[in-house]
Amino acid sequence: MKRYGILTSGGDCQSLNAALRGTAKALFRLGTDVEIIGFRNGFRGLIHREYEIMRPENFSGLLTRGGTILGTSRTPFKQIRDPEEDGLDKVRAMKDTYRELGLECLIVLGGNGSQKTSNLLAQEGLRVIAVPKTIDNDLWGSDITFGFHSAVEVATNAIDCIHTTAASHGRVFIVELMGHKVGWLTLYAGLAGGADVILLPEIPYDIDSIVKAIRAREAQRKHFTIIAMAEGAISKEMAALSKKEQKELRKKMKKKYPSPAYGIGAAIEEKTGQEVRVTVPGHMQRGGHPTAYDRVIATRLGSEAAAMALRGEFGRMAAITGGKFVSVPLGDVAGKLKTVDPESEIIREARAVGISFGNEP
Amino acid sequence: MKRYGILTSGGDCQSLNAALRGTAKALFRLGTDVEIIGFRNGFRGLIHREYEIMRPENFSGLLTRGGTILGTSRTPFKQIRDPEEDGLDKVRAMKDTYRELGLECLIVLGGNGSQKTSNLLAQEGLRVIAVPKTIDNDLWGSDITFGFHSAVEVATNAIDCIHTTAASHGRVFIVELMGHKVGWLTLYAGLAGGADVILLPEIPYDIDSIVKAIRAREAQRKHFTIIAMAEGAISKEMAALSKKEQKELRKKMKKKYPSPAYGIGAAIEEKTGQEVRVTVPGHMQRGGHPTAYDRVIATRLGSEAAAMALRGEFGRMAAITGGKFVSVPLGDVAGKLKTVDPESEIIREARAVGISFGNEP
Amino acid sequence: MKRYGILTSGGDCQSLNAALRGTAKALFRLGTDVEIIGFRNGFRGLIHREYEIMRPENFSGLLTRGGTILGTSRTPFKQIRDPEEDGLDKVRAMKDTYRELGLECLIVLGGNGSQKTSNLLAQEGLRVIAVPKTIDNDLWGSDITFGFHSAVEVATNAIDCIHTTAASHGRVFIVELMGHKVGWLTLYAGLAGGADVILLPEIPYDIDSIVKAIRAREAQRKHFTIIAMAEGAISKEMAALSKKEQKELRKKMKKKYPSPAYGIGAAIEEKTGQEVRVTVPGHMQRGGHPTAYDRVIATRLGSEAAAMALRGEFGRMAAITGGKFVSVPLGDVAGKLKTVDPESEIIREARAVGISFGNEP
Amino acid sequence: MKRYGILTSGGDCQSLNAALRGTAKALFRLGTDVEIIGFRNGFRGLIHREYEIMRPENFSGLLTRGGTILGTSRTPFKQIRDPEEDGLDKVRAMKDTYRELGLECLIVLGGNGSQKTSNLLAQEGLRVIAVPKTIDNDLWGSDITFGFHSAVEVATNAIDCIHTTAASHGRVFIVELMGHKVGWLTLYAGLAGGADVILLPEIPYDIDSIVKAIRAREAQRKHFTIIAMAEGAISKEMAALSKKEQKELRKKMKKKYPSPAYGIGAAIEEKTGQEVRVTVPGHMQRGGHPTAYDRVIATRLGSEAAAMALRGEFGRMAAITGGKFVSVPLGDVAGKLKTVDPESEIIREARAVGISFGNEP
Repeated sequence: MKRYGILTSGGDCQSLNAALRGTAKALFRLGTDVEIIGFRNGFRGLIHREYEIMRPENFSGLLTRGGTILGTSRTPFKQIRDPEEDGLDKVRAMKDTYRELGLECLIVLGGNGSQKTSNLLAQEGLRVIAVPKTIDNDLWGSDITFGFHSAVEVATNAIDCIHTTAASHGRVFIVELMGHKVGWLTLYAGLAGGADVILLPEIPYDIDSIVKAIRAREAQRKHFTIIAMAEGAISKEMAALSKKEQKELRKKMKKKYPSPAYGIGAAIEEKTGQEVRVTVPGHMQRGGHPTAYDRVIATRLGSEAAAMALRGEFGRMAAITGGKFVSVPLGDVAGKLKTVDPESEIIREARAVGISFGNEP
Repeated sequence: MKRYGILTSGGDCQSLNAALRGTAKALFRLGTDVEIIGFRNGFRGLIHREYEIMRPENFSGLLTRGGTILGTSRTPFKQIRDPEEDGLDKVRAMKDTYRELGLECLIVLGGNGSQKTSNLLAQEGLRVIAVPKTIDNDLWGSDITFGFHSAVEVATNAIDCIHTTAASHGRVFIVELMGHKVGWLTLYAGLAGGADVILLPEIPYDIDSIVKAIRAREAQRKHFTIIAMAEGAISKEMAALSKKEQKELRKKMKKKYPSPAYGIGAAIEEKTGQEVRVTVPGHMQRGGHPTAYDRVIATRLGSEAAAMALRGEFGRMAAITGGKFVSVPLGDVAGKLKTVDPESEIIREARAVGISFGNEP
Repeated sequence: MKRYGILTSGGDCQSLNAALRGTAKALFRLGTDVEIIGFRNGFRGLIHREYEIMRPENFSGLLTRGGTILGTSRTPFKQIRDPEEDGLDKVRAMKDTYRELGLECLIVLGGNGSQKTSNLLAQEGLRVIAVPKTIDNDLWGSDITFGFHSAVEVATNAIDCIHTTAASHGRVFIVELMGHKVGWLTLYAGLAGGADVILLPEIPYDIDSIVKAIRAREAQRKHFTIIAMAEGAISKEMAALSKKEQKELRKKMKKKYPSPAYGIGAAIEEKTGQEVRVTVPGHMQRGGHPTAYDRVIATRLGSEAAAMALRGEFGRMAAITGGKFVSVPLGDVAGKLKTVDPESEIIREARAVGISFGNEP
Repeated sequence: MKRYGILTSGGDCQSLNAALRGTAKALFRLGTDVEIIGFRNGFRGLIHREYEIMRPENFSGLLTRGGTILGTSRTPFKQIRDPEEDGLDKVRAMKDTYRELGLECLIVLGGNGSQKTSNLLAQEGLRVIAVPKTIDNDLWGSDITFGFHSAVEVATNAIDCIHTTAASHGRVFIVELMGHKVGWLTLYAGLAGGADVILLPEIPYDIDSIVKAIRAREAQRKHFTIIAMAEGAISKEMAALSKKEQKELRKKMKKKYPSPAYGIGAAIEEKTGQEVRVTVPGHMQRGGHPTAYDRVIATRLGSEAAAMALRGEFGRMAAITGGKFVSVPLGDVAGKLKTVDPESEIIREARAVGISFGNEP
């Protein structure tokens, strides 16, 4: 009998369950005498030995279901690595669980942070296979990850809904979207939803440039403006600060405004005298039903992760590049971030159809 | 030739366009030599003589479209009634426009506030027919209004999305929903989305009761709680204040928190030490595509409003009660509010399935 | 300990699971020392003693899920009643199971046919409580049943999808919808989707009248026509036949055309020379996620059925009329059909906006 | 002033309007003194000089709208090329229109067949730019085309809806999907919807292999099987015939069955004695609202087509490969078909999770 451990880690996203299903179905079908151990709540389950033996029927009906049946947790890398933290050497605890259960390997469905931990475990000698998941699309090494397009769909729907109201009433609307430090989700949803202004972390904005875009629309008798803004969007003034100063400023702003969009909204109201409405879909973007696209990608990556496990291709991440499966070394992926290039074609194409990125002179 | 004026007033909602289409189609079909005058941006268009002559083809393709092709505005009743406000006697201006255009009658698609104005115009001698629209479902005189069920769908979807994340992570989530001073939208979405706690304006909450509900869930090993909260929800302490004191308190809170949910969230965090996440779908609830249900209701009410216009049934609102069309006098409707009865069956049914309304001892 | 049996019977529909959840949650909460027995696959489980003891956690996560976790079956009333059929006296078998398990009562979630069987069991001395479910909306005694509005949503979406293609290409499209012998589903979806012609079982059609409606649209330079047709729609020629002749004709047609829409399509092609496209969404109409509306109704009815069980209100069906809960005697419900009245207001309203019912002279 | 002609040709699909909007917005923004001529109903408008001058506001509100505001038609290549057909030399007529209007270039949004015509026009000396659109995803030269993922979403939703019913009742269900001679749409929807059997034109099926898959599921106590079948699916017996014989057989079958799925359904019923239900979503797959993904792709391709037009890059098709824009010569694209490779990774991945392609021994 061969035992395969599996866990989901980090923020949940659409199609995590579909990826679990794909991995399990392929393991049971291609392997012989396979047992699957599902760890509860991400690495926490591996640390604290919370797990269950999963049967084929546990993976039934998962294609359409949001969330993750295994539960997840965010266990920060810093915390994991520090043997003193909590008085518990977490890496050692994980290695112990792994060995006592006699795992053939550990399959980790996770995003950027989680795969740093995966890499650490691989360096510590465990056999790890990574499956990339994130709504942020910021994982280096894979063109696409599941979760992203479903989140774009939710975010676009938010803009669509605002659009009908905006067009009926005439006002400035800000829709704040997720994505951490990268702008992919906001860029795609902004393009798909027909936002007039898109603010990304990768392109620091100038509040006066935004105001100019609003006024230019008014001059064309378009009495509403929709701004799609990434939660990590940054002003050019803030971008000029040191990392430490930025961090302090963020903290200060957070006290004043529960979400950064309210801050920008206040600034625009002050400059234009116009009423600004803010919408923050927040965690809605991680939830709901996965798109067909994400279900296909999740099934494909799960299926390939199982094949990697069976042929002993450890220390690597299953990825899809140019529509084809590739596996990339975990060491190449860990700690890297795939960001939006301000000079890329998609930005140029967006500007061509009249979208402002808040940095036009 | 007979001229029929039409306008949409107040917050926009789903199926306003479908109702315009229904009214116009029936007027053109049943009437002879009909002309339809569409006023721009609600009563503002009637005041300032901004309108256009609408042709049958202007009403094509409207069944599925959100918003309103005529535009809308919120022109407060207080402002309308006051002849000195802005130095412009608005009632007189509307009467002048109406007479100069020689309107057969004026059809007003609007909610609570707007129908107060309709009633005023009727009292002033204009021939007015009202069509009820509101996502709040607070209009007295009609069991159902279009907009409500579409808004419930958006709000429920927001809770659904949060649900998958909540179940994966374990936390307290507050979803703040619309509805002004009534709780219908939150009650329905809370029931449909499986919220654990529902806070309504009609049932003042006790923060300790909410905390108790959260702890009861934890005791059952359910590590997340979802609170559906109406924007007008009110604590029992606040409910004990005078209207004036309430107003001042609201103002004060608004300065501190962009939305009331952040305030309750902070209170729960303080009492439980647990992280609370807030989602405010906001204007999304007015937008997006109308449900089939709302399109049917909107078409039916529009069709009946046209029939009323043609048979000279003025000073009344088209309504649906018990599935059947009725017309009710505007004077009976204006200024009344249909609220959730805390002792009603639906509340009892909700409590039976384990929902807390934040006021259990 | 008190044991409550529960089963779902007949065609599945949206929110069956939500109704199961509502019933179970309220039973566990309001009752003391409650045990729930879930029978598999409708009455078949009661006949053949296939059941399982259900725990509270079995009813978790069901609000959004389509289908029924208990499974269902269509066991025709004729077959049930006939003690010789299959050599098995099914009524006796059900009574035996009921008694041996010592059931407090049996809760049956079912449509028209199933409630006939419920009534039979009640007459045989079992304590039965009925919960109405059907996408057909043909159940006598309740204004609304869950399933109906979700099915209308799917059917309307089918018409919407066809609409964009129809408008781009120009052709005659028939969308055949469910509903057995009643036209509610087609009437609502046709109204919501903006069908040009609606064919219902309650209003026999004249093929020449349909052709006339198509030509009238062409004369207005509208080069496509969408016909929403109930599966039970009937021509005036067929309506003139005896029941027996109708049955034979249907059989004959079924051999030639897999679905009646193909037959009408061929007739229209022959008369107009125009290409006709047929879409049959079929079982899609029973599936997919329930609307918020249906989830509320299902939860309410389930909650009330539990309350009825606990207060011993047997031999009755939980119903909602005028928005309020009522319970009606099973004997009043069984065997009756709620049909569309051709003279009703909704038909008149639909004709007013230009919809043809295929029987205009 | 520079005049740019634009038309949409072939079957309509989601995001055609978004692509028109993208092209127009970029032309008006980047060009100077631009005029856009929109031809009605595809090449037919170019042949018969049916067109209109389009203004910026004509392209407003198109991001979410299905269909094409210009209308479309299928004008077969064979018919176009044949100067005798209809007694009208269509190529000459198109060239005449093009020259008399003094077009700077002609932008053609179309699929496989339409781009053959584009290539012909380019060979005849017209300046043509192609934008790829198709729900079939069979266009050679571009990794992705808009329309495909929206159609996959509709098709997957059809399977999802059937899934809940199938799981509740237990039967064999066939869902017949579009795609002409290629299987992309069925493969993706089958994977996303969790079909048990997928039948593609590229992998001829053996009816006995399908029956075996159904029986294998029964042996695992799974009492339903869902078959996703491409409209172009082909049996191994038929695949062995000559093209001519195939064509004749298809004709014969078409007389007997309105859709090929009914034929396979009958064959399975005969072999297994089990009831088979058929669903044919048909034109629904071209309709409805475009996904966010397709709106992004459509906007990007439209924006790039405008840029190509302005820099004089004629005789080429705008394409996206590996996420990046490329332009490919029309001559390389015309007449080629991108099919599913039976040996490709995605097929292997699908087999690994247990999907049968109906050709397993």
